[in-house]
Amino acid sequence: MTQKALVHDGHLIDSGILTNILNLIIDEGGDYEISRFDVGKTPDDESHLRILLKAQDSDSLEALADKLSVLGMRGLGETEAVWGKVTRDKAAPENFYSTTNHRTEVFYEGKWRPVARQRMDAAIVKTSSGPECVKLRDLKVDDDVLLGSSSVTVHPPVAETGGTDGFAFMDNEVSSERNATLAAETVASEMRDIRQRGGKIVTVAGPVVIHTGGGDALAKLVSGGWIQGFLGGNAIAVHDLESRLFGTSLGVDLTTGRPTHEGHKNHMMAINEVYSHGSIAEMIASGGLEGGLMHAVIGSGIPFCLAGSIRDDGPLPETEMDMIAAQKAYAEIIADAEMILMLSTMLHSIGTGNMTPSWVKTVCVDINPAVVTKLSDRGSAQAVGIVSDVGLFLRALASFLDG
Amino acid sequence: MTQKALVHDGHLIDSGILTNILNLIIDEGGDYEISRFDVGKTPDDESHLRILLKAQDSDSLEALADKLSVLGMRGLGETEAVWGKVTRDKAAPENFYSTTNHRTEVFYEGKWRPVARQRMDAAIVKTSSGPECVKLRDLKVDDDVLLGSSSVTVHPPVAETGGTDGFAFMDNEVSSERNATLAAETVASEMRDIRQRGGKIVTVAGPVVIHTGGGDALAKLVSGGWIQGFLGGNAIAVHDLESRLFGTSLGVDLTTGRPTHEGHKNHMMAINEVYSHGSIAEMIASGGLEGGLMHAVIGSGIPFCLAGSIRDDGPLPETEMDMIAAQKAYAEIIADAEMILMLSTMLHSIGTGNMTPSWVKTVCVDINPAVVTKLSDRGSAQAVGIVSDVGLFLRALASFLDG
Amino acid sequence: MTQKALVHDGHLIDSGILTNILNLIIDEGGDYEISRFDVGKTPDDESHLRILLKAQDSDSLEALADKLSVLGMRGLGETEAVWGKVTRDKAAPENFYSTTNHRTEVFYEGKWRPVARQRMDAAIVKTSSGPECVKLRDLKVDDDVLLGSSSVTVHPPVAETGGTDGFAFMDNEVSSERNATLAAETVASEMRDIRQRGGKIVTVAGPVVIHTGGGDALAKLVSGGWIQGFLGGNAIAVHDLESRLFGTSLGVDLTTGRPTHEGHKNHMMAINEVYSHGSIAEMIASGGLEGGLMHAVIGSGIPFCLAGSIRDDGPLPETEMDMIAAQKAYAEIIADAEMILMLSTMLHSIGTGNMTPSWVKTVCVDINPAVVTKLSDRGSAQAVGIVSDVGLFLRALASFLDG
Amino acid sequence: MTQKALVHDGHLIDSGILTNILNLIIDEGGDYEISRFDVGKTPDDESHLRILLKAQDSDSLEALADKLSVLGMRGLGETEAVWGKVTRDKAAPENFYSTTNHRTEVFYEGKWRPVARQRMDAAIVKTSSGPECVKLRDLKVDDDVLLGSSSVTVHPPVAETGGTDGFAFMDNEVSSERNATLAAETVASEMRDIRQRGGKIVTVAGPVVIHTGGGDALAKLVSGGWIQGFLGGNAIAVHDLESRLFGTSLGVDLTTGRPTHEGHKNHMMAINEVYSHGSIAEMIASGGLEGGLMHAVIGSGIPFCLAGSIRDDGPLPETEMDMIAAQKAYAEIIADAEMILMLSTMLHSIGTGNMTPSWVKTVCVDINPAVVTKLSDRGSAQAVGIVSDVGLFLRALASFLDG
Repeated sequence: MTQKALVHDGHLIDSGILTNILNLIIDEGGDYEISRFDVGKTPDDESHLRILLKAQDSDSLEALADKLSVLGMRGLGETEAVWGKVTRDKAAPENFYSTTNHRTEVFYEGKWRPVARQRMDAAIVKTSSGPECVKLRDLKVDDDVLLGSSSVTVHPPVAETGGTDGFAFMDNEVSSERNATLAAETVASEMRDIRQRGGKIVTVAGPVVIHTGGGDALAKLVSGGWIQGFLGGNAIAVHDLESRLFGTSLGVDLTTGRPTHEGHKNHMMAINEVYSHGSIAEMIASGGLEGGLMHAVIGSGIPFCLAGSIRDDGPLPETEMDMIAAQKAYAEIIADAEMILMLSTMLHSIGTGNMTPSWVKTVCVDINPAVVTKLSDRGSAQAVGIVSDVGLFLRALASFLDG
Repeated sequence: MTQKALVHDGHLIDSGILTNILNLIIDEGGDYEISRFDVGKTPDDESHLRILLKAQDSDSLEALADKLSVLGMRGLGETEAVWGKVTRDKAAPENFYSTTNHRTEVFYEGKWRPVARQRMDAAIVKTSSGPECVKLRDLKVDDDVLLGSSSVTVHPPVAETGGTDGFAFMDNEVSSERNATLAAETVASEMRDIRQRGGKIVTVAGPVVIHTGGGDALAKLVSGGWIQGFLGGNAIAVHDLESRLFGTSLGVDLTTGRPTHEGHKNHMMAINEVYSHGSIAEMIASGGLEGGLMHAVIGSGIPFCLAGSIRDDGPLPETEMDMIAAQKAYAEIIADAEMILMLSTMLHSIGTGNMTPSWVKTVCVDINPAVVTKLSDRGSAQAVGIVSDVGLFLRALASFLDG
Repeated sequence: MTQKALVHDGHLIDSGILTNILNLIIDEGGDYEISRFDVGKTPDDESHLRILLKAQDSDSLEALADKLSVLGMRGLGETEAVWGKVTRDKAAPENFYSTTNHRTEVFYEGKWRPVARQRMDAAIVKTSSGPECVKLRDLKVDDDVLLGSSSVTVHPPVAETGGTDGFAFMDNEVSSERNATLAAETVASEMRDIRQRGGKIVTVAGPVVIHTGGGDALAKLVSGGWIQGFLGGNAIAVHDLESRLFGTSLGVDLTTGRPTHEGHKNHMMAINEVYSHGSIAEMIASGGLEGGLMHAVIGSGIPFCLAGSIRDDGPLPETEMDMIAAQKAYAEIIADAEMILMLSTMLHSIGTGNMTPSWVKTVCVDINPAVVTKLSDRGSAQAVGIVSDVGLFLRALASFLDG
Repeated sequence: MTQKALVHDGHLIDSGILTNILNLIIDEGGDYEISRFDVGKTPDDESHLRILLKAQDSDSLEALADKLSVLGMRGLGETEAVWGKVTRDKAAPENFYSTTNHRTEVFYEGKWRPVARQRMDAAIVKTSSGPECVKLRDLKVDDDVLLGSSSVTVHPPVAETGGTDGFAFMDNEVSSERNATLAAETVASEMRDIRQRGGKIVTVAGPVVIHTGGGDALAKLVSGGWIQGFLGGNAIAVHDLESRLFGTSLGVDLTTGRPTHEGHKNHMMAINEVYSHGSIAEMIASGGLEGGLMHAVIGSGIPFCLAGSIRDDGPLPETEMDMIAAQKAYAEIIADAEMILMLSTMLHSIGTGNMTPSWVKTVCVDINPAVVTKLSDRGSAQAVGIVSDVGLFLRALASFLDG
């Protein structure tokens, strides 16, 4: 058995992190002795923990310490970061540190330094302005990549408790048996707060928003200045255009709810109409499109990206079919967002979640509880889920924000 | 090969029944020759079909003719019904005719006679007032039970087409990607029509109505005279009471949406409160309950039945724990209903569907598309599904009916 | 502000209970000061906590202490229990203690006494042999019912960690993206252990077991002595009989998978066949049924209960249609079970979960993740979920137990 | 009212097409008179229908005739095709004919000519070798694009009836309550038939195949020569590699089923390992990967395409991130396939379905019934759904194909 002292300062108990730390050690076959534990006497006090971590051999010990670092544990004292050089583009040196989406600091040259562009599943590269998250594919020969976790401190978000912040009400289990009107009210109130302080709200939306009749409500939010960035795919734009040009969505009549026979053709007619104008923007400019969601998005001038996919028809000229470029555009649009509203699109929501820091308020509305579960499984544990009908939900949200 | 002539008069083509008839014959290993087919020249005309049904032997022939009778085919000319005596309570004679939920006629003593108390899965008994559906368990020694299908004509409902009746819009595939606001509007308009002609609307509702905040809207429909019968289970009443007495539903605070710790206890407190009064009705009478859904149901004096189940707590004094009695009460309440609104309860909806004739307009609202599918699988093919959030849906419905 | 000292001894941290305790206090508007916290130095050591609980007034203080008792906190020292008399059958005195499904002790007449017949949502009655859980409906005038929680200690189960017990692998989030073969292997190994020590395993099964082709595998488990009690409803027995008599299940041919037209009639024919014999048992005795699940259940002589419901056809003579009697029979059959296998029936699984202590290993197999979530929501948090195809799962399980 | 004669030859009744034709006319506000209807006397005979279609004005009449053409109705006699010139790349002339996925013929220069590269949502371009489906985005200035539908005959597939082809068993409603073992057996038997006649089978697979433990079974099918083309995304390859290199899939240990803490990092390690080798192929060549699904796919030399998406990590060097290129590669790989096995990936399955002719046998296995419904909604009505656990299903399928 070898051993090593590790410490943790912070909200260890109310966050449940202490429980996770001790269980992880046992699950991984290690052992521990608590050498000191100053528990915060009152809810506002932080706790201080020092443990002696034990493992079979020094490799297991380091591996385990590595895993514990994700939960905020760090070695006693500061350890100067060790960097490895990239010798082949895209390939990180062995034992590179792979990031979480939590706030992270690295200790080097005598100082704890915050990591920029925080996101999950990246490497940390030393740049002249400090440590920075870089995706593997963007690594270049000679980049300095952080190795191991001994010089890292991670700050998992402390769960907000109910007393102080209404927004936390939803961070319970996902269930379809909740009151969506209340949820809409809470989201609206959070959006109002963010707006007041000049914060940024981004939405990621799927075509179900249009099919379920939520398009006008979302367009109203965009025009009303509630949304500062719009992410989606080809389909939401196609069906929005189809609904404006033909009154149908995937061939279903939006005023009667009935399928119109061969209405499935309408979405191709809509795409062709855009091709005839050159682009959606040109179509709007020439008066060929007079309302709807894309009209609001383009008209309001907020940045947007329609990320293509293997299942797209067309695609529309505005749709980005190069996924590398699309991921870049998404990342730029969500930068510094305080809230992301994910509306009934699993694909684009997971894509967005992958690049979102854990401290961004993330609300996911879907009629299928599995979508929210999956988002959490993929690392976006901060996402709160509202299992409801997105069309009705958006109408409720828009009416709360109107008042 | 033996053969036999069968005929069919009615809306054979637009209903898709002709397709079903011919496919069934082939699927079952039989064969056919169409000896005459006068197709309705215009949409309003009926068609007349005569086929020569062929099968390996006379047993297969009869079995096949039997199955075709469900689709409305009958022997050429009229065949006097054959009846078998019940020799043991509850046990029908072999080869008894098992009913569908469609309008049915039996030919005997020289006349086609309509079957009373139509429901699926019953035997037909000859009574002094005519043929009648009787459940197996209600058969008594010496009852005359109809044998075979050769004297039966079944009238499957003709699908209503869109042009004439907006209500049919939903009889398409079940999908969560529809506009529930439109659906609510259509249901509201149908309810208005039924009310105007003095028709009867019954609702079957589950506790999710309360959890999702739809309780007030449903209470309003009841008080407003839109509902003439209320079916449910123990849980919807318990959670309605819990919400009135403690402001929670399954321990979740209905005004903040947050779980209140140990709020799970509240539903037992609510039950105990009723026990102390003797019953919900007595509690209302003594002023112990001043609003909510059960208050509206009991206050409005409409008939209701809370059918118990293996998972019930309490149960409430008003809950019927004998399932034989509960099925009887349900059947009486739905008698002559023109519409049944099924709100987020698979158990009670299937129970109700089992006893409902196929010509009753059945609307099933559930966030889980599988519930609607299951209802259809169990024989209630007429049920139209609205996949949405029942709380938001009821608010929309109530607001349309208010206007 | 009033205050009160509370203590807790046990596995406070690895179980996450400490986190829950402190968060509950804050969520409920209370406050605390930790006066002493001896953390277990090693994984096997218990921790000892003493806090000063604070609240606005003494009512809130008592209410909060009450809620904390569910998590295992108790007043400093022992407090003699206070009992209230029942003055009306079924109605508990105000402020009665409503039980959880965790191991519970009550202090009275100078001693901590374990509560018998532990289940959730009951009152605790003092009997000559000790304290006992009694359902509200079974309370009789003059019963002594425990009031408040100050003389109660609750022992929530300590989560088993992976290192020592493979069975815990599943107590993670519910997901359909898991390897069901592994899950079957783990359940099989647990069943083998239980059998070896003479323990009892009960199954609760729904008709989907038959529809998905898992009936033979389950029958094999029963015949092989793996199952000591069988719970279900009317439908699983009807479809089992239908499959034996006609080779179909809900009219779907079990060897070809095709719906047989009008095969829906077969389940009524099966019921009628039983009625002709008097009961399933008599049918077996007279050679009218030669295999299948019910044959195995009745043949093996294990206790069983088919609990009726509002949606039942027939019902079969063996089906218990009085829900009070059915709940009683279920409770007797699960008494002392070490494991309950819940197979694709939400209704009966929740019914069983309601009466099962939290220390019974509960495995819930369903293709719908929402079923497992719902079971947890209803208080059976110990249930581990396997989201899979129950027919394929049972075949895998049977093959592991065979080897 | 204007009117026009239309005819139809084919299996009008057993396919249900006649029903659809007449209902469509009424739904669209038109009217009809049946001027002649020679019904096929026996199951093998085709029927001949002539109707007089009526509408308000000639525009509505043409629009309606257009919609009817999708169902196989065409004008009396032959009408020479009318072509419009493309005047701007990508933009079809107004009133272009948008294709279905059914076999289609166009009449021009005195002959009915089959359309090549049949797929849905394309334009038809006249080329020197005959008419051909061309996607809008591939239209070039001066292409001759077919206008209107009056010179088109569409041949919707005739539903295979059960008697002659076991494969049709599944074209019933989607349900999770079916026997997946039977389904696997039927699919296996169909695969054996296709293989015997040298046909081509393509699979589209998602990462759930790996998570649920079906990777080895699928690899075995590939190595065994059952699969002639492999379609997927980045994730299935990443998790396959992760499982080979670390024994985990999304961080869940594949032998114990437990999440390994920080195992989420493993998939990034796997990607980095590939980057270090340059590509999966180079990694295999250098001995860095010795088994698993991608090893089988690349080793067997079958064509494959991993289509990227907005949510991809990495991506792997073999992943195609340009969606235009990915759609092209997919289309080439499925060309002439007789069967497509879609395994738990909605995104890639819909993408594939979009380009697949309706006569290709399409089997979709997913634990979520909504996936199959959605595939049908998007036009791939021929897809038969098996709602089951894909891991267990693949094991069953592989064992049937082994025997």
